Amino acid sequence: MVYITRKEHFNAAHKLFNPSWTEEKNQNVFGKCANPNWHGHNYYVYVTVKGELQKETGYTVNLKELSSIIREKITDKLDHKNLNLDVDFLEGLMPTTEVVAIAIWDQLLEPVSKLGGILHCVKLCETDNNYVEYFGGK
Amino acid sequence: MVYITRKEHFNAAHKLFNPSWTEEKNQNVFGKCANPNWHGHNYYVYVTVKGELQKETGYTVNLKELSSIIREKITDKLDHKNLNLDVDFLEGLMPTTEVVAIAIWDQLLEPVSKLGGILHCVKLCETDNNYVEYFGGK
Amino acid sequence: MVYITRKEHFNAAHKLFNPSWTEEKNQNVFGKCANPNWHGHNYYVYVTVKGELQKETGYTVNLKELSSIIREKITDKLDHKNLNLDVDFLEGLMPTTEVVAIAIWDQLLEPVSKLGGILHCVKLCETDNNYVEYFGGK
Amino acid sequence: MVYITRKEHFNAAHKLFNPSWTEEKNQNVFGKCANPNWHGHNYYVYVTVKGELQKETGYTVNLKELSSIIREKITDKLDHKNLNLDVDFLEGLMPTTEVVAIAIWDQLLEPVSKLGGILHCVKLCETDNNYVEYFGGK
Amino acid sequence: MVYITRKEHFNAAHKLFNPSWTEEKNQNVFGKCANPNWHGHNYYVYVTVKGELQKETGYTVNLKELSSIIREKITDKLDHKNLNLDVDFLEGLMPTTEVVAIAIWDQLLEPVSKLGGILHCVKLCETDNNYVEYFGGK
Amino acid sequence: MVYITRKEHFNAAHKLFNPSWTEEKNQNVFGKCANPNWHGHNYYVYVTVKGELQKETGYTVNLKELSSIIREKITDKLDHKNLNLDVDFLEGLMPTTEVVAIAIWDQLLEPVSKLGGILHCVKLCETDNNYVEYFGGK
Repeated sequence: MVYITRKEHFNAAHKLFNPSWTEEKNQNVFGKCANPNWHGHNYYVYVTVKGELQKETGYTVNLKELSSIIREKITDKLDHKNLNLDVDFLEGLMPTTEVVAIAIWDQLLEPVSKLGGILHCVKLCETDNNYVEYFGGK
Repeated sequence: MVYITRKEHFNAAHKLFNPSWTEEKNQNVFGKCANPNWHGHNYYVYVTVKGELQKETGYTVNLKELSSIIREKITDKLDHKNLNLDVDFLEGLMPTTEVVAIAIWDQLLEPVSKLGGILHCVKLCETDNNYVEYFGGK
Repeated sequence: MVYITRKEHFNAAHKLFNPSWTEEKNQNVFGKCANPNWHGHNYYVYVTVKGELQKETGYTVNLKELSSIIREKITDKLDHKNLNLDVDFLEGLMPTTEVVAIAIWDQLLEPVSKLGGILHCVKLCETDNNYVEYFGGK
Repeated sequence: MVYITRKEHFNAAHKLFNPSWTEEKNQNVFGKCANPNWHGHNYYVYVTVKGELQKETGYTVNLKELSSIIREKITDKLDHKNLNLDVDFLEGLMPTTEVVAIAIWDQLLEPVSKLGGILHCVKLCETDNNYVEYFGGK
Repeated sequence: MVYITRKEHFNAAHKLFNPSWTEEKNQNVFGKCANPNWHGHNYYVYVTVKGELQKETGYTVNLKELSSIIREKITDKLDHKNLNLDVDFLEGLMPTTEVVAIAIWDQLLEPVSKLGGILHCVKLCETDNNYVEYFGGK
Repeated sequence: MVYITRKEHFNAAHKLFNPSWTEEKNQNVFGKCANPNWHGHNYYVYVTVKGELQKETGYTVNLKELSSIIREKITDKLDHKNLNLDVDFLEGLMPTTEVVAIAIWDQLLEPVSKLGGILHCVKLCETDNNYVEYFGGK
C-alpha cells in the first residue's frame, strides 16, 4: 500500500452562528467567528488516497485525475464562495473546519473509489495554526 | 539606517464590486471576486520601519511597541471582519489588496513616527501567490 | 472520530549534556549541542486532539480553549526560558526533542481530557529539518 | 515508542515514459511529465524512525547518524542526478514519486535497523502540491 | 505608486556546462550542476509590477491578466521542459538563475507595459536557499 | 546589475540585558528577552550580493564560494553558540537582531568584495514574525 496526497486550495467566507442560541451564547462560544458580516480564510485541503502500485505506470492513482476530481467536486464549488450560503453540499450545516472536512470526505469517497484508489484522509487547514483530519468511520 | 519588519495577520471577508457598473461588467473585471455573498482570506501584513540604532538598547524601535500599534490600529479592526462593511478606515473604499495596503499605511504613519521610527513599507499578502507593497508617496 | 490540531510556539535555550560522562564523551555523542554556554531554537508544538463532533457547535473541542490550555500549561512555561534550568516539569531531564515532547504530553493529557477530547499526538519541531511525534503509550 | 523525523533534500531530473507504449499513450497518461528532454524537481524526503527512548542520551536514535545514513545511502546518490539514468538502485524503474519513495525505503531499512531504530515512514515530496508516504509492507 | 507581485512556478531540468571549457574546468566551476545527464528544480518566479492605482477598480493592474501573461510568455514555455534544449528564448544561453531571470524580464517587459503597468522586478527562486532579482537596466 | 541571495542558518542562545540599568528597567524594556538564563532562536540569514553577469559562467558570483564565505565567517562562529558569550565579533555588543545583522555585514563586506561582488543587503530573521535588513551606510 502506498499513500499519495494532493493539495488544493480555496478562499471562502463563513461565520459560526447557531440560530437556536441567543446572541450572547453565540458570542461566548464562537467569539469573533460569530461576526454577523462574515469573515474568511485561505483554506488548504490535502486529500490522501491509498492504493496498490500500478506496474505499467508506477502510479497509485493518476494525480492529474485526482486533482480534476477535487476541483470538480470540491474547490470549484467552494472557491470564492460563502460556506454558509453558496454551497449545495454544506446546506444547513455549521461550517466549522471539522464539518467542512467531513463534508468534503463524503463528496470524494465515491469518485476516488472509481479512480481505483481508497480515500484515506481529508486534511483541511483553516489557518497556519489549526487544521482538521478526517479518516472516515462513524 | 536599519530596517526592521514585523509581521501580523488577520482573517477577513470582502468582495470586489463597483456599484456604478452593471453586474456583467463587474463579472468581467472582478470575476469570482465579485461573488455577492462574499469570500475571504488569511491576510498577512508586514510593516517595515527604518531608523537609527539606539545605543542603549540595540533596537531601532521596540518591536513589542510596534506590534502593539499594529494590533491596535490595524489587526484588531480588520480581524474576523468584513472589509466592505465593518471597518471605519475602509468606509466607501473598494477593498482590493492595493487599497487596503495604502489605508494601512495611512493609519500607521503617525503612530510609527511617535515611536521614533520612519514608516518605510507596508506589504500586504492576500494569498500565497500575490501581494502588494506600498512605500508611501503620491 | 475527528482529529483537530492546534499549533503554538516557544523560543528557548538548552544544551544536551550528560553530567555522568566525560567532556569528551559528551562531545562525541552530542557534538555542538553540548556547547556549555547553551544554544537555542524556535520550537513549534502541534497538539492533536481526537473526539466526536458536537452537534450544537460543529466543534470537536473548542480551539480557543485548547489554545488556552496549551499556553497555560506549556508555552507560558517554556517561552523565552532555558529548558535545562527554568522549567518545573523538565527538572532533572535531558531536554532533547523527544524528552520535551513526552513531557508536554504528560502535562496536557488530563487538561485535554477535561475539555472533552482525547489527546492523540504531540508533535514538537526543533528545526525545519527535524521533529518528534509522541502518541502516548509505554 | 517515539517517532523522530529527519528531512533531507535533493534536486534531480526525470521523465515518466513507458517504452512499451506508443508516444500517444505516454502523452495521454503522463502528459507533460513525458517530455523527452526531461524536467526536474526539488525533492524533499522525510524519514521517520520509531524506537524506545535511550535513558543516557534522551535520544531515540542519534539524528546526526540518521542524517549521515540518509546522505550516504540516498541524497548523495540522487542529488543533481537523472533519476532515470544515473542511480544504481533505480535502474530499470519508472521514477514516479511512489516508486522512488519505495526504493528509498528499501535502501534505508537495514541501515536504520543497525542504528537501533525501526524505519516507520518515508515521505517524498515532489512539489508543494503532492507527496507520497510509504510505510513498508506489501 | 503601488507595487504588486504575482508568483507563478515551473518545474524544469537543466545543466550548467560551458562547451568551450574542458570537462575538468566545468567540474571545478559548476561542480555537480554540470552533471551530463541533467538535474532539475521546482522554480518559483515572482513578477513585480508598479503603477498608479486605478480609481474605478482599486487595481494597479488586473492580476488575472498579469497571471495570464506570465503563463503564456513564461511558464507554459518553461514548465516540464529542459532549459538548455527546449525553450526558444533561452537558445544558446547558459541557464543559470541569473540568465533565466534576465530572459524572463526581456519576455515580460513589453506585455506588462501593454497591460498598463511598469515591470519592476523579476525574482527567480531555484531552491529554498538561493534566488536572483533583476530590476532591468544595464 | 543582478542581485543574488544565499540563505544560511544558525541556532543560537542570547539575552537582551543592559548591565548599566536596574533589573526593573531591563524588564520594562526587554521583557521576557531579559531572562537571566537565556533563551534562543533558529536564525536565518539572507546575504544579497550585486554584480555584473560573468559571460563565461552566467554567474554574478559563484554561489558555492559565497556559501563557503558565509559559513566560514558567520554561521560556523554563531551556530550552536551563545551570542552574548561565545562570538569574537559580537564581544561587548547587545545581540539584538539589528546589532547582529550589522555585525554580519561588517564581517562579510571585504570577503564578498574579494569574490568580485558588492555586498548589497544582510537580512536576519529571528522568528517567523520579525526580521531586520541592513544595507550598509551610516
